[in-house]
Amino acid sequence: MPAPIDLRSDTLSVITPEMRRVMADAEVGDDLYGGDPTTRRLESHCAELLGKEAALFTASGTLSNQLALRGHTRRGSEVITDTKYHLNFFESAATADLSGVVLNPVDSPDGVLTPALLDAAVDRKRRVRLTSAPSLVWVENTVNYFGGSVVRVDDLAALRAASLRRGLPTHMDGARLPNASVATGTSMAEYAATVDTVAVSFAKALGAPFGSVLAGPADLIEQAATYRLWYGGGLHQSGFMAAAALHALENNVDRLAEDHMHARLLRDLLVEHPGFTAPEPETNMVLADISGTGLHAAEFAKAAAEAGVQVARWTDTRVRLVTRLGVEENTVREAVRRLHRVAERRGALTAG
Amino acid sequence: MPAPIDLRSDTLSVITPEMRRVMADAEVGDDLYGGDPTTRRLESHCAELLGKEAALFTASGTLSNQLALRGHTRRGSEVITDTKYHLNFFESAATADLSGVVLNPVDSPDGVLTPALLDAAVDRKRRVRLTSAPSLVWVENTVNYFGGSVVRVDDLAALRAASLRRGLPTHMDGARLPNASVATGTSMAEYAATVDTVAVSFAKALGAPFGSVLAGPADLIEQAATYRLWYGGGLHQSGFMAAAALHALENNVDRLAEDHMHARLLRDLLVEHPGFTAPEPETNMVLADISGTGLHAAEFAKAAAEAGVQVARWTDTRVRLVTRLGVEENTVREAVRRLHRVAERRGALTAG
Amino acid sequence: MPAPIDLRSDTLSVITPEMRRVMADAEVGDDLYGGDPTTRRLESHCAELLGKEAALFTASGTLSNQLALRGHTRRGSEVITDTKYHLNFFESAATADLSGVVLNPVDSPDGVLTPALLDAAVDRKRRVRLTSAPSLVWVENTVNYFGGSVVRVDDLAALRAASLRRGLPTHMDGARLPNASVATGTSMAEYAATVDTVAVSFAKALGAPFGSVLAGPADLIEQAATYRLWYGGGLHQSGFMAAAALHALENNVDRLAEDHMHARLLRDLLVEHPGFTAPEPETNMVLADISGTGLHAAEFAKAAAEAGVQVARWTDTRVRLVTRLGVEENTVREAVRRLHRVAERRGALTAG
Amino acid sequence: MPAPIDLRSDTLSVITPEMRRVMADAEVGDDLYGGDPTTRRLESHCAELLGKEAALFTASGTLSNQLALRGHTRRGSEVITDTKYHLNFFESAATADLSGVVLNPVDSPDGVLTPALLDAAVDRKRRVRLTSAPSLVWVENTVNYFGGSVVRVDDLAALRAASLRRGLPTHMDGARLPNASVATGTSMAEYAATVDTVAVSFAKALGAPFGSVLAGPADLIEQAATYRLWYGGGLHQSGFMAAAALHALENNVDRLAEDHMHARLLRDLLVEHPGFTAPEPETNMVLADISGTGLHAAEFAKAAAEAGVQVARWTDTRVRLVTRLGVEENTVREAVRRLHRVAERRGALTAG
Repeated sequence: MPAPIDLRSDTLSVITPEMRRVMADAEVGDDLYGGDPTTRRLESHCAELLGKEAALFTASGTLSNQLALRGHTRRGSEVITDTKYHLNFFESAATADLSGVVLNPVDSPDGVLTPALLDAAVDRKRRVRLTSAPSLVWVENTVNYFGGSVVRVDDLAALRAASLRRGLPTHMDGARLPNASVATGTSMAEYAATVDTVAVSFAKALGAPFGSVLAGPADLIEQAATYRLWYGGGLHQSGFMAAAALHALENNVDRLAEDHMHARLLRDLLVEHPGFTAPEPETNMVLADISGTGLHAAEFAKAAAEAGVQVARWTDTRVRLVTRLGVEENTVREAVRRLHRVAERRGALTAG
Repeated sequence: MPAPIDLRSDTLSVITPEMRRVMADAEVGDDLYGGDPTTRRLESHCAELLGKEAALFTASGTLSNQLALRGHTRRGSEVITDTKYHLNFFESAATADLSGVVLNPVDSPDGVLTPALLDAAVDRKRRVRLTSAPSLVWVENTVNYFGGSVVRVDDLAALRAASLRRGLPTHMDGARLPNASVATGTSMAEYAATVDTVAVSFAKALGAPFGSVLAGPADLIEQAATYRLWYGGGLHQSGFMAAAALHALENNVDRLAEDHMHARLLRDLLVEHPGFTAPEPETNMVLADISGTGLHAAEFAKAAAEAGVQVARWTDTRVRLVTRLGVEENTVREAVRRLHRVAERRGALTAG
Repeated sequence: MPAPIDLRSDTLSVITPEMRRVMADAEVGDDLYGGDPTTRRLESHCAELLGKEAALFTASGTLSNQLALRGHTRRGSEVITDTKYHLNFFESAATADLSGVVLNPVDSPDGVLTPALLDAAVDRKRRVRLTSAPSLVWVENTVNYFGGSVVRVDDLAALRAASLRRGLPTHMDGARLPNASVATGTSMAEYAATVDTVAVSFAKALGAPFGSVLAGPADLIEQAATYRLWYGGGLHQSGFMAAAALHALENNVDRLAEDHMHARLLRDLLVEHPGFTAPEPETNMVLADISGTGLHAAEFAKAAAEAGVQVARWTDTRVRLVTRLGVEENTVREAVRRLHRVAERRGALTAG
Repeated sequence: MPAPIDLRSDTLSVITPEMRRVMADAEVGDDLYGGDPTTRRLESHCAELLGKEAALFTASGTLSNQLALRGHTRRGSEVITDTKYHLNFFESAATADLSGVVLNPVDSPDGVLTPALLDAAVDRKRRVRLTSAPSLVWVENTVNYFGGSVVRVDDLAALRAASLRRGLPTHMDGARLPNASVATGTSMAEYAATVDTVAVSFAKALGAPFGSVLAGPADLIEQAATYRLWYGGGLHQSGFMAAAALHALENNVDRLAEDHMHARLLRDLLVEHPGFTAPEPETNMVLADISGTGLHAAEFAKAAAEAGVQVARWTDTRVRLVTRLGVEENTVREAVRRLHRVAERRGALTAG
């Protein structure tokens, strides 16, 4: 059996030997006793990169998001967001447990939260003492659910204006903001200027083993540093992880263009077989409809894994395939060959 | 100016002189020192009436609901309900603050939570460790948002079967369950048999000055009694309120048929003027569309108040009118006369 | 068997026929629709009586206290109080559950929180990001644990100065503040001037069936009104209870002097038998040491109940006896006769 | 100026080149996609080492402790512990915020929670519905506040028996359990057998850059894995940290005996100057009373830092000095020489 190709997620990016070396050589100190120098350097760098007053290194994207949520909201208040965002799926439990807020998600067709949708979400509840009061607007970019789709900076600027009219701050779950930035040529700082706080992950397409950063106003970040400790996120010699993250920011942002190119190639090759359809990917994810193969997505994922390609089941008819550091052009071509074979074998079985 | 007629809500039911006398004569004790006899009597009566093991008298419908929620759920878990229910509007803040749960509301067309909607709500999120796990199904009957519409017992039984297949308990916000019962001839116990816990208000159409009851399994009610104290809901000599509630249950349930008849009359008379349309009311509320008057609902409510009828603005084009204890047939006729005059005056203004 | 005399608590004060009549005749409205006039009148009266900007009527002393706690503190912060206060015993669960604060109780010898004890409590923890930060100072007056002992206004003024030096607000659990006021001749307003917020119960020595008031700054009270609804403490036609509370304030404050006199008489008569010792009561409670009877407090309480006097077991060697509305001089004399007989019978048994 | 010697804490242990290499070479996978092999290996190893069904790797000792607390308790319940434990000082905020429990700390003279102290703590509150119910007993070993003092396994076994009689589970904050084990010859598993769950830190005397483990029953650990994600503690490629922790367990436990020897040497040399007194250290910490130098502890710490030794101010008269990986015999001797010089210079100043 050939070496398996894992296209389930970009969090699976394999750390490079060079990044391992950088980690091993990191200058470290104790974050609780005077500070870790590499972490301080990473935080300054991120604050500048994102055009914010301050930044905080955290262990995970979930932690960055939850710290932002805690910083912006009061218990019993309400967060306007989208049904399809990561927050509503994979952070719903933490959100209710840690911050005690209500999610008020709108159903956008494309993951773009517009001023009209914001107004509708706020206005569909009569606001009395017993109603949760809106406290935060929450956007995601790129949008995971829609296959890494990009939200344009103009749309965010319009949302920002609408949010401000209602006195609401905005947070961006920018786990994959670097992909949006590379895909559009809009700098991360330009994007970040449309929100109050932004969280960016190092452990997704950027290829670091883990970690995330939250950037925003100095006082909110200061408070987040306290909650980070309360939530058990204090890391003593965090410099090892910070070194990997710095290396990722310096080396792995521009190369995301390759991932995007590989995703387009993957899609173009894949749909050459009639069993597959897929929209043109905007960044590094292909959402492939596999109904033409006659298989349920779960069956397809199983068959694909047996044929040497791991894909993520997305819905009953769709699977997600993600390009990333370590997935080269020939990997893409080989993966498609294997997936086509799965479809053909299926056709054969059906024909038989 | 004529005596104003207040049709905003049935919580405005004026206590009768007889009920005042019953309150004044109540036998009382201290609920924290051996118990209040009238309260004990009310609780036994309600447990029997609703066919449940035990019942707890509480200060408000919100408290009964919140105690049920706390008893059924864990923090970070998820409640399947309807976007239009009272819970999602007027208890959202408390729900997040006190119980730390996530609301997962479906958008039913009519306030009836069906098995299909339940399945869709549960299945639209991929359930991993980070996702809130479903813990409770929440229904409302009658449905306030839809003008006191009645949910049929068969629909609830079907939902119950679907909930049990998923291992989920069900709670009914039956603030106006007596209205549903009188309107359908289904007893309150028959209705309550389709859910694990049910909350019924005494302060709405039943005409008591305040109070509510939560009925359900003995252990949950025992726990609710503890949380009631924690939430500050311990009432020393609660017998005064319990006496009013008992009197309401004994005297004011059957007469709800009159309120319903008055509501139908109100609607039939109202729509004789072309400025108004309204669906046939199922219980004691008329949701009147007043767009034919050329007025925005807020303007209409203001003009109506000036003409001697208080109505509740419901949406931009609709107002709510509620019949209740103290609103007799001639009150209804006079109210409609005044409301027609508002529409006519408006017409005159427009014509002019 | 003679009619039993219940001396367990002043919450057992039996409502007078006159107060029943006042309740029955109360002018009421809906607190959620424009307001209940009697409740508004009670709140204004209390604000004035306590010299505060605003006041809120609530269902229970626990609720008033918890609303104050919520208003003054942030989750994860720390309340400086006394080990012996009601808060640390009977509101500990609610405090942690609703407000998420840490209690830092000092062990005063007499229930008087002094500046030195406050300083010690704050300084015994090293205050870093992970330590709960002090947010509130909490006093009680009279002190239930010490048998209704009175805290002097000068002591409170000194504590206030120390609290302000640390930037901390102060709350007084004044469930029995009227007793302290009558016992010392210090007005309730003079007492209340030494704290930011104060809660006073109507259901203890004042003889109302239930209810409490929280008084303080307008913005805190406004916020408390919201949390009151969230906690399920909204009462529709609250005027019935408010009327009783108003009546209690107008008629039952001055008469507390009688309760205090009766308590002193009770103590003086009781200790005539060598089986009993007890300190001079400061207000309406006698903490009697019954070890001289050879009985454990639980046994004594049982025997006393059989002899026609209900007392509250306090510790293994002490019981609490409380005078109140409805306990007259001859009741006191009869109660002591019965209690002496319990001690004698015990002596007889032992001798036998 | 000579190279500074930092004796403030063992969390300052400098990672060895060998451990850096082990980290750099770690085999990793994604903890959220099928698991990280090195982390799995560490968890199995720890479960065995501590004699528990399961173990969970976490980012910090605070996180391990908070997950245990969450797993054992219900909101509004009570944890019996010691005033002097780390929990009461440096985790009080998190404890209240995340788990909503009440701390009921006893004041032991030596950090040893005895059955008698446990009984007293439980019994000093009358337990009614409004009182927080005890849910957990919490011990610490070694005891940081008392300079790394060791709790004997027999004392813990006696406490366990008493806890079980009351139906209470026990958790051990064993951040420095390896020190207790090496100092007494009691294995970590023998210690762990006296509690239900135990947390051990890798980032203190064991010299790993960070991380901790929580061990206990499989179902509690399973639940802790969920809360770990909610609190933002999910680490994708956690193998790098796990590798360091494994290396620490394999190489740095036995050598703690050297730290303990160095601490005794440090103490013996230090008290040769009359400015210092200190009890015999039991593990790796010296609590030195520096009042004999005429300096306040804060002044002393400042002067010592200027003289090239960093010490931790503990109280007004005491400082803490900790030996650890990287502090050798000659480091100790040099540190004492410098500290003596501080005392002498002070003497000179005073004399002058």
